[in-house]
Amino acid sequence: GSSDDEDTFKILIATDIHLGYLEKDAVRGNDTFVTFDEIMKHAKENEVDFILLGGDLFHDNKPSRKAMHSCLEIMRKYCMGDKPILFDIISDQAVNFGSSRFPWVNYQDENLNISTPIFSVHGNHDDPTGADGLCALDLLSCAGLVNHFGRSRSVEKLEISPILLQKGSTKIALYGIGSIPDERLYRMFVNKQVTMLRPREDEESWFNMFVIHQNRSKHGATNYIPEQFLDDFLDLVIWGHEHECKITPARNEQQLFYVTQPGSSVVTSLSPGEAVKKHIGLLRVKGRKMNLQKIPLQTVRQFLIEDVTLANHTDLFSPEQPNVMQKVQAFCQQKVEEMLEEAERDRLGNPLMPEKPLIRLRVDYSGGFEPFTTMRFSQKFVDRVANPKDILHFTRHRESKDNVKEEAIDFDMLLSRPSSEVLQLRVEDLVKEYFQTAEKNMQLSLLTEQGMGKAVQEYVDKEERDAIEELINYQLEKTQRYLQERRVEASEEKIDEELRKDQRGGERREEVKGRRRDEERKVARGKRGGDRWRRGE
Amino acid sequence: GSSDDEDTFKILIATDIHLGYLEKDAVRGNDTFVTFDEIMKHAKENEVDFILLGGDLFHDNKPSRKAMHSCLEIMRKYCMGDKPILFDIISDQAVNFGSSRFPWVNYQDENLNISTPIFSVHGNHDDPTGADGLCALDLLSCAGLVNHFGRSRSVEKLEISPILLQKGSTKIALYGIGSIPDERLYRMFVNKQVTMLRPREDEESWFNMFVIHQNRSKHGATNYIPEQFLDDFLDLVIWGHEHECKITPARNEQQLFYVTQPGSSVVTSLSPGEAVKKHIGLLRVKGRKMNLQKIPLQTVRQFLIEDVTLANHTDLFSPEQPNVMQKVQAFCQQKVEEMLEEAERDRLGNPLMPEKPLIRLRVDYSGGFEPFTTMRFSQKFVDRVANPKDILHFTRHRESKDNVKEEAIDFDMLLSRPSSEVLQLRVEDLVKEYFQTAEKNMQLSLLTEQGMGKAVQEYVDKEERDAIEELINYQLEKTQRYLQERRVEASEEKIDEELRKDQRGGERREEVKGRRRDEERKVARGKRGGDRWRRGE
Repeated sequence: GSSDDEDTFKILIATDIHLGYLEKDAVRGNDTFVTFDEIMKHAKENEVDFILLGGDLFHDNKPSRKAMHSCLEIMRKYCMGDKPILFDIISDQAVNFGSSRFPWVNYQDENLNISTPIFSVHGNHDDPTGADGLCALDLLSCAGLVNHFGRSRSVEKLEISPILLQKGSTKIALYGIGSIPDERLYRMFVNKQVTMLRPREDEESWFNMFVIHQNRSKHGATNYIPEQFLDDFLDLVIWGHEHECKITPARNEQQLFYVTQPGSSVVTSLSPGEAVKKHIGLLRVKGRKMNLQKIPLQTVRQFLIEDVTLANHTDLFSPEQPNVMQKVQAFCQQKVEEMLEEAERDRLGNPLMPEKPLIRLRVDYSGGFEPFTTMRFSQKFVDRVANPKDILHFTRHRESKDNVKEEAIDFDMLLSRPSSEVLQLRVEDLVKEYFQTAEKNMQLSLLTEQGMGKAVQEYVDKEERDAIEELINYQLEKTQRYLQERRVEASEEKIDEELRKDQRGGERREEVKGRRRDEERKVARGKRGGDRWRRGE
Repeated sequence: GSSDDEDTFKILIATDIHLGYLEKDAVRGNDTFVTFDEIMKHAKENEVDFILLGGDLFHDNKPSRKAMHSCLEIMRKYCMGDKPILFDIISDQAVNFGSSRFPWVNYQDENLNISTPIFSVHGNHDDPTGADGLCALDLLSCAGLVNHFGRSRSVEKLEISPILLQKGSTKIALYGIGSIPDERLYRMFVNKQVTMLRPREDEESWFNMFVIHQNRSKHGATNYIPEQFLDDFLDLVIWGHEHECKITPARNEQQLFYVTQPGSSVVTSLSPGEAVKKHIGLLRVKGRKMNLQKIPLQTVRQFLIEDVTLANHTDLFSPEQPNVMQKVQAFCQQKVEEMLEEAERDRLGNPLMPEKPLIRLRVDYSGGFEPFTTMRFSQKFVDRVANPKDILHFTRHRESKDNVKEEAIDFDMLLSRPSSEVLQLRVEDLVKEYFQTAEKNMQLSLLTEQGMGKAVQEYVDKEERDAIEELINYQLEKTQRYLQERRVEASEEKIDEELRKDQRGGERREEVKGRRRDEERKVARGKRGGDRWRRGE
């Protein structure tokens, strides 16, 4: 490992802290705040140069007052103080932090005594929304407690200027992209619209780090970001969003960079990935060499998951027995007792661990068995398990191999995501489907599908109650302006005609361009010529 | 006036800034932020020692992200910097700021470079709510930008410790009470449960200031705080909540103190009180002498209000004429034109004033005239008036003097309040009425009327969606605890019996005591003896 000297950056790496997740839950309500406190304490004890967060610091796009208050309290407690900052920023901070009202790094603000600066991109849970285009991190940034970077205003093109950091002889170029809908970012990569700017001088002297908050595993054809898309000059990619802890840097043999996936610091779904022991990372960078030390989190609630297949236990019970249900219940109960014992053993000597573990028993009841109601079962564990209501999860193998529908939707994949994301994915699908139909029937005269889709999604996901109204007003104004410029006589038929002209791309003044435009562009690039508009083909 | 020397406190006084009021309005949306910026600029230009706010800094209990962001931005801009602070706090700050996670004044925090500290009580719009008992000011306090004082956890008793400030030879004792429902505070005063603690030594050397955010004018018998209730050792009372600017200190000849009512810095209702020119105050205190300099606010949107009585213009039109409606409309239009001209003249040489004024014409149509629909009327002024939709307000004198209902509800009073408060008053009434009935019929077995009333009101007013659920859980837990302690056999009848015992005051462990208890106490004090429980009388 590297020694801690004047040329060595020490960086605490964490992601997906999800402050406020289940904050109303009597048992689990404080988990996220307690663990965030622990993370910050590790940063302090290790005297890191800075903290690097990979998005989803908050679970809710509009965090509750309590979540915001706890976050401010913890940050003020750990980020402020007299410890000197031993590294410099040599890039243009007005570019790096351009979205902030105070576009410079917080530790150089002469009114704030910062001991440990935090740098963070936003995630999909706490991304900018609404007419103001603000996100929760912007409040923290305005309060001088976070340096929010990796933000882009364009939806078709990204040009990423790194934050250039120097400590002694070590130089880090820190790139970041705050969360963007995967399909959009995928498209931008495919269309070569993502550019990572590199410092002109001594190109080879930089350690190049990149923070990204996207799907890493494949969710549908274009609903993730393949590692191959990323520039191969990178040295280390810090991948947020994925909750499974795979923090040990994995080498991508094609691109020759390493990827570390710290994973979330809280269990937000009862799936196997979340059962992997949670860690944060202490990253040391010296010259172009790095070392990542795993720090196990001590305050994270235990989560044990096991699978049982009833058909494998026909020695104990069979579907034909009259009292099979009781036997199966007793069997499941015994399994849970064993898991609780295991949790208990594991908790010995770990006083910071919460008492009640999360337990999930997945019961495959294929082969003629039947699921049972879990109310009485839950009651038995209500004082010993943090999630008594959903300990059991019944699954069944599909009986027929020829079932064509099997491939239609990958429910296992969907269900392995946090439930809020499942909703999001489904809403996305619904919106997409709706607008594909609408397109065919020419029902969209005023609203672009992307604009409307975004508004509907924000309405559903982000409690942006005004999103739809704002979008419609925006489109109406734009249309009126367009018509005024053309001095069109206000006959309705003509307006309709003009609108179609506008939508076909006769004018290219819009900043926000939808999928239609992208497709046009592809067609144009393909030199297929002819009618650029899809309906005409 | 006083000179600005080392013994003179200079204090900027403002109240009811209502950040975020109508923030979605295309014309008026930024008014509150612009004026808050102006207020802070006056503080800076006048190099005041501190800023004292009288509550309702925010309009919404849960300010929008934009409102909070703008507030943080403006405060960080004006409150931080190198100006030295020339006064000391000699009281126990842990008491003064006990509700904060950082219970000391912000300018003495070694990690914050504060140039102009803000001291504030909360108002009725931004008061503490919910299970966390937090308010918007607590976020600002946690961010180190506001010193929130005047907060009490008890609902039956207040003991107010002043913040003791010293600059040179001048000593100020600053008392404050954050907003409390008027009826509750009224009751506390009547029951002698409000105590203002005074420094033991040199009692006569202190300038005693008191910040209060309550109804000052009478709204029903106990729904305001009479000045006579306040201690007569006070020198100056700073009265928030009332929006009319009556900032020139008025002497209360009974109590021998002065009262200044700065008024709001934004028009939130189109009533005559709000048409009074808006000011903030620059208060100088030297020894026990004070001087208050009025500072007119330059960015406040003009508001002109006029009354016309149609029956006084029978030379122009009469109800019998066939085209009377057109004539009345033309007359009103002419009036508004004149008001607009007046506004225009007034705005000359005031470049900071917003262009479009607020206009209200109150039309008394008594005597056979009829109101007309205002849509076309609004249309005429849509580009010149900030409130085109509600310029006209039709009123009518009651025809019969003998109408008994006349005294029932003072609608004029109600309507002179901001509309949100009208709702609040009505909800309060409804809740009160409901629980008075409920009490008679013994329908409340588990929930105290005060607890439930508070929950319902929070649910309606403060978007506290969980208020009712939380209250019920709290009461259930309390009841269960009580029963467990008594080791009661779980027969339902007995539980019911025990509950009644509990409610009758057999045990006095509750922190929150409702009106029933207050009434009991009164009865007890009155030495009337007998059954303490009202139903028994």
